[in-house]
Amino acid sequence: MTANMRPRGPIKVTLVGSGNWGSAISLIVGKNVQKYDNDFDSVVRMWVYEEIIDGMKLTEIINTQHENVKYLPGKKLPANVVAVPDLLTACKGSDILIFVIPHQFVGNVCAQLKGHLKEGALVVSLIKGFMTQKLKGGIRLVTEEIRDLLNVDTAVLMGANLAPEVANEDFCEATIGCKDQKDRWSILKKLFDTDNFKIALTEDANTVELCGGLKNIVACAAGFADGLGYGSNTKSAIIRLGLVEITEFVELFYHGSNIRTFFESCGIADLIATCSAGRNRKICEAFVKTGKSIRELEQEMLNGQSAQGPLTAEEVYLMLKKHNMVSRFPLFSAVHQICQGHISPDHLVTRLREYHNSD
Amino acid sequence: MTANMRPRGPIKVTLVGSGNWGSAISLIVGKNVQKYDNDFDSVVRMWVYEEIIDGMKLTEIINTQHENVKYLPGKKLPANVVAVPDLLTACKGSDILIFVIPHQFVGNVCAQLKGHLKEGALVVSLIKGFMTQKLKGGIRLVTEEIRDLLNVDTAVLMGANLAPEVANEDFCEATIGCKDQKDRWSILKKLFDTDNFKIALTEDANTVELCGGLKNIVACAAGFADGLGYGSNTKSAIIRLGLVEITEFVELFYHGSNIRTFFESCGIADLIATCSAGRNRKICEAFVKTGKSIRELEQEMLNGQSAQGPLTAEEVYLMLKKHNMVSRFPLFSAVHQICQGHISPDHLVTRLREYHNSD
Repeated sequence: MTANMRPRGPIKVTLVGSGNWGSAISLIVGKNVQKYDNDFDSVVRMWVYEEIIDGMKLTEIINTQHENVKYLPGKKLPANVVAVPDLLTACKGSDILIFVIPHQFVGNVCAQLKGHLKEGALVVSLIKGFMTQKLKGGIRLVTEEIRDLLNVDTAVLMGANLAPEVANEDFCEATIGCKDQKDRWSILKKLFDTDNFKIALTEDANTVELCGGLKNIVACAAGFADGLGYGSNTKSAIIRLGLVEITEFVELFYHGSNIRTFFESCGIADLIATCSAGRNRKICEAFVKTGKSIRELEQEMLNGQSAQGPLTAEEVYLMLKKHNMVSRFPLFSAVHQICQGHISPDHLVTRLREYHNSD
Repeated sequence: MTANMRPRGPIKVTLVGSGNWGSAISLIVGKNVQKYDNDFDSVVRMWVYEEIIDGMKLTEIINTQHENVKYLPGKKLPANVVAVPDLLTACKGSDILIFVIPHQFVGNVCAQLKGHLKEGALVVSLIKGFMTQKLKGGIRLVTEEIRDLLNVDTAVLMGANLAPEVANEDFCEATIGCKDQKDRWSILKKLFDTDNFKIALTEDANTVELCGGLKNIVACAAGFADGLGYGSNTKSAIIRLGLVEITEFVELFYHGSNIRTFFESCGIADLIATCSAGRNRKICEAFVKTGKSIRELEQEMLNGQSAQGPLTAEEVYLMLKKHNMVSRFPLFSAVHQICQGHISPDHLVTRLREYHNSD
């Protein structure tokens, strides 16, 4: 019997994660498995890291009130999205696992799941950021890490998808990168595409993932520009140069990218949205205006969570330094040095000017 | 004697136009001809359409007070920028003519100049918009028109260059498109490049010019989105789709474009700046919020001048209709139909959704 002829039951889907973005995407996925009930199992399990909220378990609240009161208050989740506190129980027998957790948890989650996933399972990563390799210097894609640890196929979903707006069902787009698995494209589209969340698919998965992580560095630069009171010409120049550095970085370190991918939602659209309204932009604007450190501002403004941009800038900087390429990426490098307090924010434009002058 | 060996005197530069953008660029050009006085004649003549301001001629005001009190009040122009009321006198013997007039005046200006330009003169167009060919259906590049009417070489300068910010010397970038005339690139860079106005050159001149005109249609769509209260996800999706339609339009009707050109300031950066802070965006936001016609709003908000976006949308729509391609350009087409009152602004997203669904 060939793979194609293998009898399949309905596809089981698990959401690994239940934060703001995980809860928002559960609205879409929960409805779509019901809409396409010939293809999918009607229950979507959602792994929820258990917390006690006002004396009650978060999983219990979700399963009785159908609301994630902590991370997406005020939005009713579909009743077929079932919160499960135990990771292995949540993932057992699943065909598609949607990873939507902070990248810091990836190693631990994979260690627990190792050897327990269904054969042929696909992990779809919604994680925007990279694995840190401080000692080796450089970045590692989250999907590379997941593939290595779990020996599964992976796909990524990235785009201009600020979670509260997705939860409000505002019209937007997203890009799914899925290599060498074209037979899975139609099922991925069924799982994620709605009238207000339009999916495009591409084989250029690395580029999709890299765009999603690198754009946070550019958002920091946009935030500095806003903090310094720069106008639209300067901010647009910064975003453009950021996009150029993203494309060059991808081409240099991950060969074979398709330039068309940057025209998808994961590229230019996510960059624009993040540079207008993302949390990295906001933190970095405050960094300039208040003079406080990034760490202090994260605690004040993000409830102790970390912004990805400064971290990613550091990882990328170490990688560029190792390869002797700092001067080819003046914007990426300046963001790291500004975040660290090594240079003042108003050096951002000085760096870009020098870069132009060295042409 | 070959062209290269032809003895040349200092290069004479004329600005044909003295509005807001013309006055702003005169700050740059006026200083650069002094900086590179081995290459350029030290006087930049500026053709000023004569007007009487408080009983005094505008040319006299500019030449005595060195300020264009009507179009760029509060900024001192370099003293070597000399206002000339007569077009032929302003242009006589000039090597480089910078056209920075509303595109409606191009025909008339060229008719007057015909047969009076120096042999080998180069016209650099800063005009963002197209020539109208309502009867034939379609658009015609301003530089095509100029080349035909005057039998001269042309170049274009476009970018994220909101004039007041350029006049304030905020850091920004611009792109010069200049075909088959690489011997002129260094002189064009000397004429326009400064520490705060960084020039990149490309041979892909048609794409540069098309980006500068077409982006105004997208800015209208961004304005509708703002008027309708759409968030960042939706607005980013609209800008992205607009960019995709720009690239497809250019490829379809002006073959041989280089996709890299869209990553220059004339492409993505100008699009972002215009969709954030341009006048087309503003007018179209007001169109949704007030229910007034575009024409009324132009009179109220632009002192009777016209916004280019709705005009360009009409010209492009006629061209698409003629070629039976309206459905391939849902955003461009919707902008025209909304401006005309044929469909309601909230149909914009419906159109984009239908377009995705027809994939």
